[in-house]
Amino acid sequence: MQTLINLIEQKKFVEARSILLELNAVDLAELLAEIENRTVFLLMFRLLPKETEAEVFAYLEHDLQQRVVEGITDRELAGIVDELFLDDTVDFLDEMPASIVKRVIKAADPETRRQINQLLMYPDESAGSLMTIEYMELDSDWNVKRAIDAIRRQSEDKESITSLFVTDDSRHLLGIIGLRTVLVSRDEELIGDLMETDIISAKTHDDQAVVAEMFKKYDLLSMPVVDNENRLVGFITIDDVVDVMEEETTEDIYKMAAMEPMEESYMEAGVFTLARKRIVWLMVLMISATFTGLIITNYNAALSANVLLASFIPMLMDTSGNAGSQASVSVIRGLTIGDVRLSDVFRVMWKEFRVSLLVGVGIAGFNFVRIWGMERDPAIAAVVAVTIFFAIIAAKLVGCLLPMAATRLKLDPALMASPMITTIVDAMSLLVYFNVAALILPQAG
Amino acid sequence: MQTLINLIEQKKFVEARSILLELNAVDLAELLAEIENRTVFLLMFRLLPKETEAEVFAYLEHDLQQRVVEGITDRELAGIVDELFLDDTVDFLDEMPASIVKRVIKAADPETRRQINQLLMYPDESAGSLMTIEYMELDSDWNVKRAIDAIRRQSEDKESITSLFVTDDSRHLLGIIGLRTVLVSRDEELIGDLMETDIISAKTHDDQAVVAEMFKKYDLLSMPVVDNENRLVGFITIDDVVDVMEEETTEDIYKMAAMEPMEESYMEAGVFTLARKRIVWLMVLMISATFTGLIITNYNAALSANVLLASFIPMLMDTSGNAGSQASVSVIRGLTIGDVRLSDVFRVMWKEFRVSLLVGVGIAGFNFVRIWGMERDPAIAAVVAVTIFFAIIAAKLVGCLLPMAATRLKLDPALMASPMITTIVDAMSLLVYFNVAALILPQAG
Repeated sequence: MQTLINLIEQKKFVEARSILLELNAVDLAELLAEIENRTVFLLMFRLLPKETEAEVFAYLEHDLQQRVVEGITDRELAGIVDELFLDDTVDFLDEMPASIVKRVIKAADPETRRQINQLLMYPDESAGSLMTIEYMELDSDWNVKRAIDAIRRQSEDKESITSLFVTDDSRHLLGIIGLRTVLVSRDEELIGDLMETDIISAKTHDDQAVVAEMFKKYDLLSMPVVDNENRLVGFITIDDVVDVMEEETTEDIYKMAAMEPMEESYMEAGVFTLARKRIVWLMVLMISATFTGLIITNYNAALSANVLLASFIPMLMDTSGNAGSQASVSVIRGLTIGDVRLSDVFRVMWKEFRVSLLVGVGIAGFNFVRIWGMERDPAIAAVVAVTIFFAIIAAKLVGCLLPMAATRLKLDPALMASPMITTIVDAMSLLVYFNVAALILPQAG
Repeated sequence: MQTLINLIEQKKFVEARSILLELNAVDLAELLAEIENRTVFLLMFRLLPKETEAEVFAYLEHDLQQRVVEGITDRELAGIVDELFLDDTVDFLDEMPASIVKRVIKAADPETRRQINQLLMYPDESAGSLMTIEYMELDSDWNVKRAIDAIRRQSEDKESITSLFVTDDSRHLLGIIGLRTVLVSRDEELIGDLMETDIISAKTHDDQAVVAEMFKKYDLLSMPVVDNENRLVGFITIDDVVDVMEEETTEDIYKMAAMEPMEESYMEAGVFTLARKRIVWLMVLMISATFTGLIITNYNAALSANVLLASFIPMLMDTSGNAGSQASVSVIRGLTIGDVRLSDVFRVMWKEFRVSLLVGVGIAGFNFVRIWGMERDPAIAAVVAVTIFFAIIAAKLVGCLLPMAATRLKLDPALMASPMITTIVDAMSLLVYFNVAALILPQAG
């Protein structure tokens, strides 16, 4: 790395180039990202062999892509845009300021320009915005020999040729055929006889999360995208879907931690955006926690009568909160990956009930012995043990029920993760606590 | 669905079969999973066309696969094992009781039997256990025409032919060549000249999480697996990696909710397993929460002097806990997907500090106005507002620091998610609370 920078600073470009030639595009992009100096960065980018330049460009972060575009000539830009797969161009343009978008579109040839403009129109996170339009089309009345010849002639510019699409003259999608099927068939067989007509496809405006689900469910490597008249407009490949799955998981995890998901990554997001995405749920949860406070005010007499009671409040709140989140997060994840279904609601409740009995007995028993031993007060030990036992059972049941109820009401179950459950369960456990205390400790009533 | 069951119960097999023929394997597996009656289940499975039987079998849950194997003859079993891809057979055998493993291995032909036994030896979650050995090999001195002929003759039994592997006589991996490259090249070009020698491969014992990372980083569709002498033993395809990514995410999410991850899915896992996976962390966190309780005991005088103070404890604990988890979960996810690196620690802290100022001012201001208005006690309002302001700043800083510290110490950052942060931040916010109270309310000192 430092060697490379030294070579470039000393203008030993031939030596630098021979090192660059040995690396693959992903590693080259990583290397470029580590160069702070703009001049060295641009010099190194220009040293890349022409054929990997576009590939490396596609792997750069958006701010570095912008730096490249700002530093190269229109001719060089045209060369890169020409080599890039269309979906990568559109991904990059989506994040650029208008001046750069204009320059890139101007640099593209007329046909590419038309296609870019069309792809830019699809809404964010739609199947249309994910797809590429460089697909390989076959005619159903071609035989295998003719199809193979066509594939061998045309496939250089296609993003993937694992699946080939059979269309009629108006580009209606008639069938799909795997490249392997074509290759293993005899020369004279007809594509129309070999193709599969049971097609799993997406519409241009379908949500990307739905598309990702279908890829997972059907183990797909690619999926055609059609318009409302079933005309083929493009296809989506698994590598883009893998990125979508990662984005969707991040969104879920954010929601589970009481944050609104955001478009940018954490490092890219500004301070104001982060604060805005976090404060809403903090406020909501804070107001709910105020009700828990009211319970304490209500039972102040009990607390004054026995000051030891107050010291167990954090432990009771935390433990029942954690027990509840364990159940809710298990169920939320189960719902997301399709392991748990709404119709399983009674099986899930029965399962959580038995789990909470086991966990409750363990935790309550441990506390009883510990508190009796340390505080020499069997009555307080009993109050805490009985409370934690019932609080854990209630927490696990609420924890598993709420995500399923949210799903039933077409809300996102991820909203019912730890923070929400904690707030609800806190109030419940304190209510149990003070009532058990009133029963067992007469003076606390 | 009900129609289908009726048809089968009335032994109208021809009609039933014609319905089954129109469905694809994934949907057929889903349909079979919904049939409660064992006899109808087996009848329907046997009605499947021979060529999709194995594919449907591969998509069934393990308990249903077992049901199939128990209900069919050895000959039928041999037919299915013969059709299944080897990695699917091994996946299924991994979960079966010994008696069924024996029957299946006996049913396989000698070559398949040898291969199954070899694959069963690789440890769970290793590259070896993920790979399939049905790859397509080429010789480097073949020309393109000969290679295409070989591919067309042999590829029927290969799981994927998107990438082809070039080996020498002792099966050492020399290069990789994409099927597309072969197809677009001229007949007389040599495979050895066209292949890529910059190979990204896995070793048989590499962890599956590492393999999944490489697939994501390099946008791979398949990856060769080699032994310690660089001899090709198999390859991994993206569809199996997608499943691994899902498993790994589930493990992360479980850890973030203070549960030990488990092998089985939630619905498959037994009550004792679930209880065991959950109670350990509950105990650990409970004991830490006891220290928070000690703080309350310590400041009991303050609480007795001003009973209103106690009622804000749940709100303070919950809000600072939530503020801390927001930061920790953002950073944990950032570390997982490679957005945040250890070297970013100061940038992250500076970011969280500014976010916490904004959030802190908002939440503190809101509380000050609300408490003053409702309780008519500006001193208490000030105590709560000042406390929550500092508690949020501290929570966000601890929240972002701990996952990075864990990573630095080669621990899993996911362990530093909400539950752990909540426990730590609770204690901190109470300490701040009572000290601020002592400062502002003289009688609480």
